[in-house]
Amino acid sequence: MSERIVFFLSDQTGVTAETLGHSLLTQFDGQNFRQVTLPFIDSIDKAEEAATRINETAPDGGPRPIVFSTLVQDELRAIVRAADGLYLDIFDVFLEPLEDELQQKSTHTAGRAHGMSDIESYMKRIEATNFALANDDGGVTRNYEMADVILIGVSRSGKTPTCLYLALQYGVYAANFPLTDEEFDSGTLPDILVRQQTKLFGLTIAPTRLQQIRKERRALGHYSSMQQVRYELREAERIFKKYNIPNVDTTEFSIEEIASRILSSTGVERRVRP
Amino acid sequence: MSERIVFFLSDQTGVTAETLGHSLLTQFDGQNFRQVTLPFIDSIDKAEEAATRINETAPDGGPRPIVFSTLVQDELRAIVRAADGLYLDIFDVFLEPLEDELQQKSTHTAGRAHGMSDIESYMKRIEATNFALANDDGGVTRNYEMADVILIGVSRSGKTPTCLYLALQYGVYAANFPLTDEEFDSGTLPDILVRQQTKLFGLTIAPTRLQQIRKERRALGHYSSMQQVRYELREAERIFKKYNIPNVDTTEFSIEEIASRILSSTGVERRVRP
Repeated sequence: MSERIVFFLSDQTGVTAETLGHSLLTQFDGQNFRQVTLPFIDSIDKAEEAATRINETAPDGGPRPIVFSTLVQDELRAIVRAADGLYLDIFDVFLEPLEDELQQKSTHTAGRAHGMSDIESYMKRIEATNFALANDDGGVTRNYEMADVILIGVSRSGKTPTCLYLALQYGVYAANFPLTDEEFDSGTLPDILVRQQTKLFGLTIAPTRLQQIRKERRALGHYSSMQQVRYELREAERIFKKYNIPNVDTTEFSIEEIASRILSSTGVERRVRP
Repeated sequence: MSERIVFFLSDQTGVTAETLGHSLLTQFDGQNFRQVTLPFIDSIDKAEEAATRINETAPDGGPRPIVFSTLVQDELRAIVRAADGLYLDIFDVFLEPLEDELQQKSTHTAGRAHGMSDIESYMKRIEATNFALANDDGGVTRNYEMADVILIGVSRSGKTPTCLYLALQYGVYAANFPLTDEEFDSGTLPDILVRQQTKLFGLTIAPTRLQQIRKERRALGHYSSMQQVRYELREAERIFKKYNIPNVDTTEFSIEEIASRILSSTGVERRVRP
């Protein structure tokens, strides 16, 4: 199948255009998309450069490119819209109904000046990230009274990336504690966790998937044997049940989905919004 | 000003609806928005529950809520669209032009089954996160030959969260190395960095902002004195110039923007797409 180029255009980072486009493109199976992000298009020169790249994409009668765009300035949007692609822009479509609803003209300004709220939000995310790092893997500081949530699970069940994502994306204070032989042998959690029982959230994962992940780290030995993997997961689930700890099976989920399910299930409030 | 409720509805995490909505709402100054995310709306029951919440928002003649939605199933969208809010859905608007362009009906399926590419992408992001953690703050392993990019800058210039974001969002292998008295006294970088000179990228920041950030950590002393902060930043910038290292001033930027500018400036390819 011939390749179809997809552009993500933005006067800022391109993250919005990318997430929008990705949601839509996953609805079309079997297509061969090649994705190109063009961020920081904030001048007429850069818009014309983007238009040229779009026009050069299909010179010999191939399919024209698809362009997902979040360009807020009308004059820049006009330049890129005139290029030879399917042009889909959120401001084209959604700004007018919002202006009508709010009875207010939009500011139409790109790269909004950063006010105090952005600096506050930056600080909160940094602090949450530092918290996650200091309280990773049952780390020494164990500031669990400050935690919003404490993830528990066996080694490689996804605790660390999920905590970091919760911190960076939502400013949530997430600690994590690995379940190991100490917990499995006694069948109990340490006091430091029991005292924070309402904050505990469990991660579990399918044995075959966990084995696959562990083998990437250490191909041989006990750690990635199917027997060991099954044993640890069974004991971890027994502990979740004993202490009535909500938990999620991460096997089929992306990091975003795991994080979102934790917030949704625990009711933990995000401290910042993207 | 009266509060306006904004809902983000999704059959998945809500991240797309949130980023879309946020881009649009920042175009309206002075409004008092309260944001509520309702994720995982994947059944008729849940759609009806969401519609009820929307209807209950403005019972006594206050302004109706704004609803940003990414519900792919037509029947769920119809339920929520009928509720009393301004309903803005990306599938309503963009799916038809895309179907026409690709000459293919969309699958209209929520929560697409995760194929091998998702598992691969999960692994890549996890591996990149482990790399960032192992190579944080000039860490012991220093696997710099494997790095895509190595961030350098003074303490608290934003290196760690940026590296973690690059890993989690893009699967990029990002290491970081703090510039300290050792580098400032000699005016040179250690050999281990000079050998990877093409991968180096500098972070700098305004002195007042850095002082503010450092004071959050240690309120008193040398570390957060204006004299020290100015000295370190001046010396770091001297090093950037000496070795011709591209760099960005992080003062006004969010973590997303810093990460995006690094990719855009270095040409480092992301290993995964969101």
